[in-house]
Amino acid sequence: MTDPIDVAILGASGYTGAELVRLLLRHPHVRIAALTADRKAGQAMADVFPQFSGIELPRLTTIAEVDLDAIDLVFCALPHGTTQGVIADLFARKPSLKVVDLSADFRLADPAAYETWYGHPHQQLALQEEAAFGVVELNREAIAKARLVANPGCHSTTSILPVVPLLKDKLIHPDQIVITSATGMSGAGRAAKEEMLFSEVSEGVHAYGVGKHRHTAELDQEFDKAAGRPARATFTPLLIPMNRGIYATITVTLEGGATAEQLHETLARTYAGEPFVTVLPFGKVPQSRHVRGSNGVQLGVVADRGPDRAVLISTLDNLTKGASGQAVQNMNLICRFPETSGLEQLAIFP
Amino acid sequence: MTDPIDVAILGASGYTGAELVRLLLRHPHVRIAALTADRKAGQAMADVFPQFSGIELPRLTTIAEVDLDAIDLVFCALPHGTTQGVIADLFARKPSLKVVDLSADFRLADPAAYETWYGHPHQQLALQEEAAFGVVELNREAIAKARLVANPGCHSTTSILPVVPLLKDKLIHPDQIVITSATGMSGAGRAAKEEMLFSEVSEGVHAYGVGKHRHTAELDQEFDKAAGRPARATFTPLLIPMNRGIYATITVTLEGGATAEQLHETLARTYAGEPFVTVLPFGKVPQSRHVRGSNGVQLGVVADRGPDRAVLISTLDNLTKGASGQAVQNMNLICRFPETSGLEQLAIFP
Amino acid sequence: MTDPIDVAILGASGYTGAELVRLLLRHPHVRIAALTADRKAGQAMADVFPQFSGIELPRLTTIAEVDLDAIDLVFCALPHGTTQGVIADLFARKPSLKVVDLSADFRLADPAAYETWYGHPHQQLALQEEAAFGVVELNREAIAKARLVANPGCHSTTSILPVVPLLKDKLIHPDQIVITSATGMSGAGRAAKEEMLFSEVSEGVHAYGVGKHRHTAELDQEFDKAAGRPARATFTPLLIPMNRGIYATITVTLEGGATAEQLHETLARTYAGEPFVTVLPFGKVPQSRHVRGSNGVQLGVVADRGPDRAVLISTLDNLTKGASGQAVQNMNLICRFPETSGLEQLAIFP
Amino acid sequence: MTDPIDVAILGASGYTGAELVRLLLRHPHVRIAALTADRKAGQAMADVFPQFSGIELPRLTTIAEVDLDAIDLVFCALPHGTTQGVIADLFARKPSLKVVDLSADFRLADPAAYETWYGHPHQQLALQEEAAFGVVELNREAIAKARLVANPGCHSTTSILPVVPLLKDKLIHPDQIVITSATGMSGAGRAAKEEMLFSEVSEGVHAYGVGKHRHTAELDQEFDKAAGRPARATFTPLLIPMNRGIYATITVTLEGGATAEQLHETLARTYAGEPFVTVLPFGKVPQSRHVRGSNGVQLGVVADRGPDRAVLISTLDNLTKGASGQAVQNMNLICRFPETSGLEQLAIFP
Repeated sequence: MTDPIDVAILGASGYTGAELVRLLLRHPHVRIAALTADRKAGQAMADVFPQFSGIELPRLTTIAEVDLDAIDLVFCALPHGTTQGVIADLFARKPSLKVVDLSADFRLADPAAYETWYGHPHQQLALQEEAAFGVVELNREAIAKARLVANPGCHSTTSILPVVPLLKDKLIHPDQIVITSATGMSGAGRAAKEEMLFSEVSEGVHAYGVGKHRHTAELDQEFDKAAGRPARATFTPLLIPMNRGIYATITVTLEGGATAEQLHETLARTYAGEPFVTVLPFGKVPQSRHVRGSNGVQLGVVADRGPDRAVLISTLDNLTKGASGQAVQNMNLICRFPETSGLEQLAIFP
Repeated sequence: MTDPIDVAILGASGYTGAELVRLLLRHPHVRIAALTADRKAGQAMADVFPQFSGIELPRLTTIAEVDLDAIDLVFCALPHGTTQGVIADLFARKPSLKVVDLSADFRLADPAAYETWYGHPHQQLALQEEAAFGVVELNREAIAKARLVANPGCHSTTSILPVVPLLKDKLIHPDQIVITSATGMSGAGRAAKEEMLFSEVSEGVHAYGVGKHRHTAELDQEFDKAAGRPARATFTPLLIPMNRGIYATITVTLEGGATAEQLHETLARTYAGEPFVTVLPFGKVPQSRHVRGSNGVQLGVVADRGPDRAVLISTLDNLTKGASGQAVQNMNLICRFPETSGLEQLAIFP
Repeated sequence: MTDPIDVAILGASGYTGAELVRLLLRHPHVRIAALTADRKAGQAMADVFPQFSGIELPRLTTIAEVDLDAIDLVFCALPHGTTQGVIADLFARKPSLKVVDLSADFRLADPAAYETWYGHPHQQLALQEEAAFGVVELNREAIAKARLVANPGCHSTTSILPVVPLLKDKLIHPDQIVITSATGMSGAGRAAKEEMLFSEVSEGVHAYGVGKHRHTAELDQEFDKAAGRPARATFTPLLIPMNRGIYATITVTLEGGATAEQLHETLARTYAGEPFVTVLPFGKVPQSRHVRGSNGVQLGVVADRGPDRAVLISTLDNLTKGASGQAVQNMNLICRFPETSGLEQLAIFP
Repeated sequence: MTDPIDVAILGASGYTGAELVRLLLRHPHVRIAALTADRKAGQAMADVFPQFSGIELPRLTTIAEVDLDAIDLVFCALPHGTTQGVIADLFARKPSLKVVDLSADFRLADPAAYETWYGHPHQQLALQEEAAFGVVELNREAIAKARLVANPGCHSTTSILPVVPLLKDKLIHPDQIVITSATGMSGAGRAAKEEMLFSEVSEGVHAYGVGKHRHTAELDQEFDKAAGRPARATFTPLLIPMNRGIYATITVTLEGGATAEQLHETLARTYAGEPFVTVLPFGKVPQSRHVRGSNGVQLGVVADRGPDRAVLISTLDNLTKGASGQAVQNMNLICRFPETSGLEQLAIFP
């Protein structure tokens, strides 16, 4: 039996923080030792998230109050931009610490790309270089030996999983990838903004960040690497009235005489044995509700009419596999726990 | 002042039937003279749709019971396949009748295309040839002199309006059109099916008819005609948890050095003065909720990063401009009423 | 033909403001002459509410910028507390003005009740005394001659309409009224608050203001008056995941041998001929969706098992009959327009 | 370590069946040995509920095909009426079997009450007498030694938990209980009916079964027993647009000088130490979303204005504690497993 580790969750008053608590409270090898939320420091977690009423949890504190000596691993669920300084400071105080970062700060390996997409130079170039990109199924080796893992974006994970293996095998044209990625509201976080009010979101749909959503940079990075040359995806996110779920519809053009069936075989082979990725039978279309609340991903491949195109569909729960679940999966890998520990929850449907 | 006409609505117990009643009850030149619903014949409309409680309306009857002598125009909101026979019979009984058909039966001019997409030969070839395709803004001349108008599909109208003018002007590649079209549930009708239950639809999203949705045939017909050669669109519909609305995200590749701004100019010019089509400022993204309950369409054009692609966004209410509202607009054109009569309702938001 | 009047809407950037614009744009006797929104002054209405894109409307201004000389009637959709001063100032500048106030400031005739429920003394006692309480169907005479009408609360209107006639006729016990009133989110307004975010509201329900919601004061005022002695209602509002609608379930105890059928007869008689109030057949249960977007109210009376109790159900659209629609109805009464002018829209279902 | 038992789920293609599978797949002491669904016999569970794709489960069979010799306990999730014969037959074939029945067939101990509420005489009077009523927290002793447990209705459990202890302690008037109980759609099951379609349910609310909902009989039975004399509750269920959750608002009149605080103390004392029932601090209002997907119940007590009334609020997930979760809890009790086995999932919010 492995000894439990002590973890801190920085930014516990947001949705990904709450999701980390939900998962870690049932993780057999983890103790939640600290929870921080600077503006809500002093409050009980149950005041901020009443689903934890009656459950023993550390009170919310500031980051400064966390006793790092007692912490083995930190989940960092803070806003991007400020995160890089916080993590640099953590490592300065305790170099042996492990960190899984849910922000965007360490996802892009290329400083120039970071500056282009985020509008300012990266402040922690050494850490940026050190960080492993945390799409577990495609990057296990690097993650397992990392001190700092950059948990990828929810949209990014959803599209990287089906596209990267096909680019690697040169089955699809790298410059003809069109992604529409519908997401629920929880991915937008818990900050009070007019455009996130119930009445602004329910009974309707709209695109956002068209032509400029920052997850595109993560897609570029991984697609280019897989294709061995610059790829070109057009990525359009949609906001739809649901809490959880990402649903990517990816139209691809087949390369070198490949067939849609071959795409399916490649994905089925790539993800055979993966505990969290299910490739549905060829032609079957997944639904986001069938992974809700779980760490699962469902992938589908459907032929378009005509021989040269196919539609890939990929869905996951943005708070679980798209954020906190994948973060736990990364922790499991780093800490040599069974990769499914704490992540066995099945999807909730209906 | 125009004399009012007497209309019959065949298939009044479905959602498009109820929407026709909603619009026509406030139409200054129309009297609702007959409502049919074969399986619910004998019931009051308020029993089937309690929003009409306290409002005087003809009782539901069978089609056979309708006195065609007293009817000037028929809205036919019946299932496809059976509709063609019903309409042929109506014309046999009264050749001077006007018919606006909301089914798919007369939308495809090419008998071969019909047979391919619907799996059986068309039974009324003469009527098929005679029917005008009812996207009003693009086909006014033919509609105005038609006896039979085929009201187009809701997904079709949504994508035809932004794409056809751009194909005509050779601004986009006809074979590089990728459409993801998200729709609410009311478009699926009122038949009791497991997959349409609230708990199967809420809090989730899924694609359907991937690679084979029949509205693709309407897109092909209109896109080919506009391009002057075979076009190729990949069309993927999504079902999302809302009642009303279609939201098409259309990724296009620019042709011959065209810019996204030029696409916008062309659409703005094409639809200037149109009462129901609003082209938003360049770069602005519409939302489906801002046309809810109205006959309006909102179009947006956004440049993708990189010079060669753009994203067109088109949204309308599937029951209004996508079905019954456009049907009333077609009637207005046929009957020489002002085109906005009965269609002045503004969108309901929130 | 009546000459059109010129109206100003103060607080046009909120939901009730937008609903007023929706209704008044189609009102045959009204011109929208001014729209104010202090924090958004200078913006176009279409920037704040894109459903008005392509429609000509005055730009948003501050209240101070409104030229009162050119205004006949003001709709005041401002927060309570500040409203009383604003309206006093309007009358000081133009005593002949008509004002329909959608805030709570002038609803309570008793200064002591106001102070109890709102926590501070009323600042405009003369106006408070002058104001007419704007439940149109029950107070036409006073409203018709008023300069200032206090549009009642959405929950209040919903419960006053079925309960008051029964109290007047002494058919129910005044001290045994239990009301649960479920409301959609649009009634909470457009201010950005965490508890109003989509993810905090969807897929769940909760009560709020239990034992202390301020609409209780309006119920007390009207119930006491109708009963001729202090009544006692227990009023519990529920927040449910929908945009529009109030749905009151009112459990009453029958008095003096009255039967549930008699309750129904009394309501049917009271509201016979009312254009906006429909009393469903005895035993029939209304649904909020069947009045959505309209100014209609649907009332139902159902017997409880056992002889001594009944359940009244009342539903309306909180933004229409519960706020802006009733405000227009009040204006129509004050200005001697037909009472249904601008309010003919039928409910939108689905 | 306890040996695992083998269970069969009869009626596995419905929502409560799927919820049982979700819970039991992670139960440390249970093997799912058989799944039945008469009309879908032969299909894989993943075809009927795709959230189980990639998970090994028995194929669906008919009830007749189940090898009872290999089964220790049966969960019966079949429609009421037919269930009683099925269970009698099971016991005839294997008297040592344990059965947890999720239908209504064995909930009422009184044959006359059953006949009144269900319209036909009970066919298995001996079993009816034998069955234990499965509200675990209030009936552990009887359940622990039962062969047949009648899992109570979802509305019933929600209201029994807060009301029964208060009646036992004579703190509230037995004849002044008014319950409004809002429920999500999943409680209505998976049968395809028009009134359960998404478009009929979303964006609205309505009451159903007013004055005659059958769960009233369960409330009567338990309330009468607790009060020691006939109680009288008025029970009105509301259907609201969400998947999961029951939310009861219970207005009570205090008896013998009791205070709302005393009600709270009694409930806090009664449920102290219960793993699934959380009594919130006095005056705090629960939300259904904070128990979503868990077996938890949250109770709140709020004073009404005035001294003599209080509002109790009780919420649970209708598919978990309101059905399948409680069924597993009953099994745990019968089989001497830890009561929380398989039920440790935390609520999913957002």
